[in-house]
Amino acid sequence: MSEKSRQWIFLKRPSGTLTEDIFELREGTVGQPGEGELLVKVGLVSLDPANRAWMAPVATYKPPVMPGDVMHSFAIGRVIRSRAEGYAVGDIVEGMLGWQDYAVLAAETVRKRDSRHSMENLLGVLGITGLSAYYGLLEVGKIKAGETVVISAAAGAVGTIAGQIAKLKGCRVIGIAGGAHKCAWIVDELGYDVAIDYKGPNFKAELADAVKSGVDVYFDNVGGEILESIVPHFNIFGRIVACGTLTDYNDAEPQPGPRGLQIACVVKRLRMEGFIVLDFAESWDKAEADLVSWIDAGLLKPPVDVREGFDTLPGNLIGLFKGTNKGKLMVRINSFDDLASQA
Amino acid sequence: MSEKSRQWIFLKRPSGTLTEDIFELREGTVGQPGEGELLVKVGLVSLDPANRAWMAPVATYKPPVMPGDVMHSFAIGRVIRSRAEGYAVGDIVEGMLGWQDYAVLAAETVRKRDSRHSMENLLGVLGITGLSAYYGLLEVGKIKAGETVVISAAAGAVGTIAGQIAKLKGCRVIGIAGGAHKCAWIVDELGYDVAIDYKGPNFKAELADAVKSGVDVYFDNVGGEILESIVPHFNIFGRIVACGTLTDYNDAEPQPGPRGLQIACVVKRLRMEGFIVLDFAESWDKAEADLVSWIDAGLLKPPVDVREGFDTLPGNLIGLFKGTNKGKLMVRINSFDDLASQA
Repeated sequence: MSEKSRQWIFLKRPSGTLTEDIFELREGTVGQPGEGELLVKVGLVSLDPANRAWMAPVATYKPPVMPGDVMHSFAIGRVIRSRAEGYAVGDIVEGMLGWQDYAVLAAETVRKRDSRHSMENLLGVLGITGLSAYYGLLEVGKIKAGETVVISAAAGAVGTIAGQIAKLKGCRVIGIAGGAHKCAWIVDELGYDVAIDYKGPNFKAELADAVKSGVDVYFDNVGGEILESIVPHFNIFGRIVACGTLTDYNDAEPQPGPRGLQIACVVKRLRMEGFIVLDFAESWDKAEADLVSWIDAGLLKPPVDVREGFDTLPGNLIGLFKGTNKGKLMVRINSFDDLASQA
Repeated sequence: MSEKSRQWIFLKRPSGTLTEDIFELREGTVGQPGEGELLVKVGLVSLDPANRAWMAPVATYKPPVMPGDVMHSFAIGRVIRSRAEGYAVGDIVEGMLGWQDYAVLAAETVRKRDSRHSMENLLGVLGITGLSAYYGLLEVGKIKAGETVVISAAAGAVGTIAGQIAKLKGCRVIGIAGGAHKCAWIVDELGYDVAIDYKGPNFKAELADAVKSGVDVYFDNVGGEILESIVPHFNIFGRIVACGTLTDYNDAEPQPGPRGLQIACVVKRLRMEGFIVLDFAESWDKAEADLVSWIDAGLLKPPVDVREGFDTLPGNLIGLFKGTNKGKLMVRINSFDDLASQA
């Protein structure tokens, strides 16, 4: 195979807000899979707040991306060549494929996916995003019908799914999002009971009004000041699902934490708990079956925000932190029709 | 009964650090119990960080103390007159008796205690203090043998018991206390593996050295900066037992929370959970039996710091926040020999 593989190289660690100059476009050669490995052509790349966290020089739930590496990312691709048992050319796989046309990687690091689902759903509602909403609410937050659930970044990848799951489980659901347009959208399209614009002048008063009966579960995608604003409203035995801290990822230095959280934890017996979906891998099939059944029943609409083109990867990741996306943000770098024809 | 009842009245809410002028000494008359009520003579008064939290104008797990009230506190007393079924003159009871010689209160608000135990143990290791250590470690922290447990305010009422319970459960136990004297005491007398002086110049370096293998459970009695200093050291699936936030109680305004806690919760899947022992009332008998068995076996020494005299109550409460006590702080306001003779 003489084709080239475009690659976005992570050049240097950012010191604060992401800028395009931390990436460099290169043309690499297409690698050859060794024993137990696969050659995968990458189709859809997932852009996630976690991408930013991996740029810090410390391990998270995976090793950090190192300067000189192809930028890490979850993605969906198709097997082009297989030297691993159980994998055939044409199989759809999900894994840490990175920002490149072709990835060579050990078969045990990828997950074979069911090609009856759309690529967008495989990467979104049936991928890390949907599973985060599912496990965060059901296993960590342990939501119950009748409870009040507040979700931040409610128009984002996880929030759009979480809000709908909380609704179909019988909760009252309040979304926090940035701007009137997103707020209207999550109520009209996704069924949130109330949406509150955190950029608006009356955020705290609107929040207080919306949660008069108290907050039972706060699904936290952002951390920082929004968590602080919710602390006074928790009911006894309230839970904080620590899914992400979007506001922290771009900070060069950690910001002070939310005021009053510790004393509220004691007095109201709150529980704040972090999780990652990898910890629930044993039950992913059950979760996927539930999510598919809700989609088929019309109870769950998975919004996706698909951008086009390899060149747009850095700009779209930067845009993620400015809130330019509605629903799950992903970039199509190779069409799956092309992939299919090569298979 | 013509005897007077000395009372410390809570005059006005403090705006920051406690001062004696928020209390006023008065002489009240001894009340008469109505139907279902008891007249109790108060013997030993418990001084706890929670006393300070109750002074804020918001309900905690109980209504706040209101200006004009007799100051609230847990205490041990003896029934002097009973108009409630199941209670007899001479019974030892524990409850929210307050800073006064005599309390009249509904029998259902007190708990009859086993007079075979010493009054000091009933109020300390077998009271709220010991139960906080017991439930905090076993039910909230879910400590396991071989884990590393860090305990703040380690020389205090809860910390002295918690450290010993963690040791007898097979954990490595690191205590944080103020001053070389307390640090030596918790190692030599209570069996802590390591003690670190948070007032010392090398606190952070000593902490890092002591927890090289990571922290599995942090039993937090203080909140604030000490929690922040532990955040970077947690192992995956670490737990923070939110038992108290001593450093917050005296603040007029809530201080910023610990930096990095939220992102650490996500990345390391930490759980921070508050509790109060009242939530575990159904199993108090089992807890008491365990604690007594450990004391009888010589595995648990309950340190008490008993001060004498009704007049010393305000000063000793203020001293609690300066760390003047070792072990459970309590004030004897009436001797139990006197009480027994009146029974």
